[in-house]
Amino acid sequence: MKTGNGARPHVVIVGGGFGGLEAAKALECEDVRVTLIDRTNYHLFQPLLYQVATAALSPADIAAPLRAVLSECRNMEVVLAEVQAVDVNAHCVKAGDVNVGYDYLILATGSRHSYFGHAEWERLAPGLKSLEDAVEIRRRLLMAFEFAEKTSDEAARKAAMTFVVIGGGPTGVEMAGAIAEIARYTLAKDFRHINPSTARVIVIEGQPLVLAAFPEDLRKSATKQLQDLGVEIRTGVHATDLTDEGLKVGDEFIPCRVKIWAAGNTASFVGKSTGAPLDRAGRVIVNDDLTVPAHPEIQVVGDLANFPYQTGEPLPGVSPVAMQQGRHAARNILAMIDGRKPQRFYYWDKGSMATIGRNKAVADVHIFKTSLHLSGLIAWMVWLFIHVLFLVGFRNRVAVLFQWAWAYFTFNKGARLITRNFQAELRPPA
Amino acid sequence: MKTGNGARPHVVIVGGGFGGLEAAKALECEDVRVTLIDRTNYHLFQPLLYQVATAALSPADIAAPLRAVLSECRNMEVVLAEVQAVDVNAHCVKAGDVNVGYDYLILATGSRHSYFGHAEWERLAPGLKSLEDAVEIRRRLLMAFEFAEKTSDEAARKAAMTFVVIGGGPTGVEMAGAIAEIARYTLAKDFRHINPSTARVIVIEGQPLVLAAFPEDLRKSATKQLQDLGVEIRTGVHATDLTDEGLKVGDEFIPCRVKIWAAGNTASFVGKSTGAPLDRAGRVIVNDDLTVPAHPEIQVVGDLANFPYQTGEPLPGVSPVAMQQGRHAARNILAMIDGRKPQRFYYWDKGSMATIGRNKAVADVHIFKTSLHLSGLIAWMVWLFIHVLFLVGFRNRVAVLFQWAWAYFTFNKGARLITRNFQAELRPPA
Repeated sequence: MKTGNGARPHVVIVGGGFGGLEAAKALECEDVRVTLIDRTNYHLFQPLLYQVATAALSPADIAAPLRAVLSECRNMEVVLAEVQAVDVNAHCVKAGDVNVGYDYLILATGSRHSYFGHAEWERLAPGLKSLEDAVEIRRRLLMAFEFAEKTSDEAARKAAMTFVVIGGGPTGVEMAGAIAEIARYTLAKDFRHINPSTARVIVIEGQPLVLAAFPEDLRKSATKQLQDLGVEIRTGVHATDLTDEGLKVGDEFIPCRVKIWAAGNTASFVGKSTGAPLDRAGRVIVNDDLTVPAHPEIQVVGDLANFPYQTGEPLPGVSPVAMQQGRHAARNILAMIDGRKPQRFYYWDKGSMATIGRNKAVADVHIFKTSLHLSGLIAWMVWLFIHVLFLVGFRNRVAVLFQWAWAYFTFNKGARLITRNFQAELRPPA
Repeated sequence: MKTGNGARPHVVIVGGGFGGLEAAKALECEDVRVTLIDRTNYHLFQPLLYQVATAALSPADIAAPLRAVLSECRNMEVVLAEVQAVDVNAHCVKAGDVNVGYDYLILATGSRHSYFGHAEWERLAPGLKSLEDAVEIRRRLLMAFEFAEKTSDEAARKAAMTFVVIGGGPTGVEMAGAIAEIARYTLAKDFRHINPSTARVIVIEGQPLVLAAFPEDLRKSATKQLQDLGVEIRTGVHATDLTDEGLKVGDEFIPCRVKIWAAGNTASFVGKSTGAPLDRAGRVIVNDDLTVPAHPEIQVVGDLANFPYQTGEPLPGVSPVAMQQGRHAARNILAMIDGRKPQRFYYWDKGSMATIGRNKAVADVHIFKTSLHLSGLIAWMVWLFIHVLFLVGFRNRVAVLFQWAWAYFTFNKGARLITRNFQAELRPPA
């Protein structure tokens, strides 16, 4: 494969998510050649994926074409390909029938859902990692209401209007809140034979409270805010069986048509081929400078990395960690090229937040060495500000802001499209 | 199937395009029950579909959920279903396993592409009628550039960068212009191994000039404007064979990867079950009041109708005809309920237009009994004004305007997403 001028060191970045894209940007117009490999042609702003799944935003609103983001500097090349493995001895990445050699490698391939050994659950309860996932979940949500409107079977109607989110982390909480809002506000007047606001939304969480990573007062506040939206929260229980007709939680069977998976991740398989030690979730246990043991030319960032040196626990799989690690890895490479050593990585934790709905959110903001616990309207406004600020590309930012403003004032959501074949969905599950 | 209160006359409208939606709106809050049946859950603003296919707009920008558009009046019900047939004797419409009885029926199911007996060409050269079509064409266009960037086979690269549009009507002209603009402006800096602005765009048209329905001076102007964008126009020839590798035009074989079909329509099969006379394109030959012979309770509007009484020729399959016929059909029904006769339909032809690109268009405007021929910037501004004015729903209008303004000033197009599995596309055709 041609990769341009061979004189300058060649940096290969695998993955165009938050970690990989930040690394690439930090190397723009530096004296290196950079090849960014991704299996999609866009950078996805994953924290807003649940808004595509719930018809508030369009796929293009939260995705920026990688080639466009990185078009300015001629030292930067984008390759659309799926990487299968790394050959650490040959210094080469295998992507389909193409091999890309590297001098320095940054692996940022992220994670997928983990179904804890129940791969057959994926079809029944899709997770939310890709645009395709989001559009599929949107279709299932909207089709459930369509089915309920049509059926004359009361039990089937109830099951269609019961939505279960498995997992009470940020994604689960955001999905549950957004589904409750769609049912109560957006669709309120749309049907003639059902009342969408009677839909049940249930969150299943194994811990005693949702949002395990948050301080306890915010976890309680989030619970209260979800309940205000009518969301039922079942804590301390696990989904033990999933079928087309519903799911089993402890001894109870909940009949429901739409189930969404927001519980647990497993790291991308690409980490394995580095030969580095992996943790139970498949993450690469990196050195404290993000390099891989015995291979200082390879660094791992973001959800694929297990970095336990700062808190004793692995850093969480959130975008600020990935972005800071991506930038750090880029700096390390420039240092190594200059003959210096890679530096230890320190995560600057500015806090975390989760949105629940209109004027509803929780935020744990770390500022001036104190931790500020916000909830409700003020947390929601902080969330809004930060998310618009970090959306990649001016166009997306304005487009998203406009659609949010529109939705806020009208309670309407514009992207309520059911695409692809839906005939099978109109029939009750066999 | 439940259809509400049985006392008032029941009007069933099949199809939520321009004709069906206008008919429904004209019956809102009137003393009738209305059931609108469509196989999608949205009204599609079809004249802008080519902008989704060329990555300028997102699907949701040009689609409005039918339930939302018609939610205000309780006499209006929307049913998501695909109609298979009409039983004119039983006064009933068959949709899946559901029968919907009617007192009055408006058929507005439109048309699909016609491949003139070559059904196998559909896979090779998709047409542009649905959102799914548009997203598929967008994927093929963007993947062709990705493939060209990767391949080292010079002939395959040339074929990937050759785009052929079959048919030089408004859709063909708009597609060709938009592809040329994407290649020359939007993607100009995105690649490292190809120069997108060297892409060839070819329009195949059987007539001596493109835009057969326009006055000759505008047809010549459109030709000139397309050529200014670098589009090659082959007139007086037909595609005689299509393969994965290219297409045959007369004696010449043009190697090309992406082919788009914009030649010829065939009416929806639903018309046939009315028992009314059909023309060669499958359209129902209606009476001069839009009713079907022997069935005054059934009216046919839009692309499905052949209305030859005004000009001697069938009225063209454009949205103004469908909208005016839809409103007329609604008025006819209210008249018949009052014991009056349905009235003859007259089409008020305000002209027609086609856009070619940035500041490029032709418009034939009928005003004060004269015909005004516009081209270039002024025609483009008229086109812009009319299209934004008629976009359904305030939100879509503002969203589209914003994205156009953004694209106009930056030459950028925001919706450049390749979704679904693309691995097969990265390999050369077998």
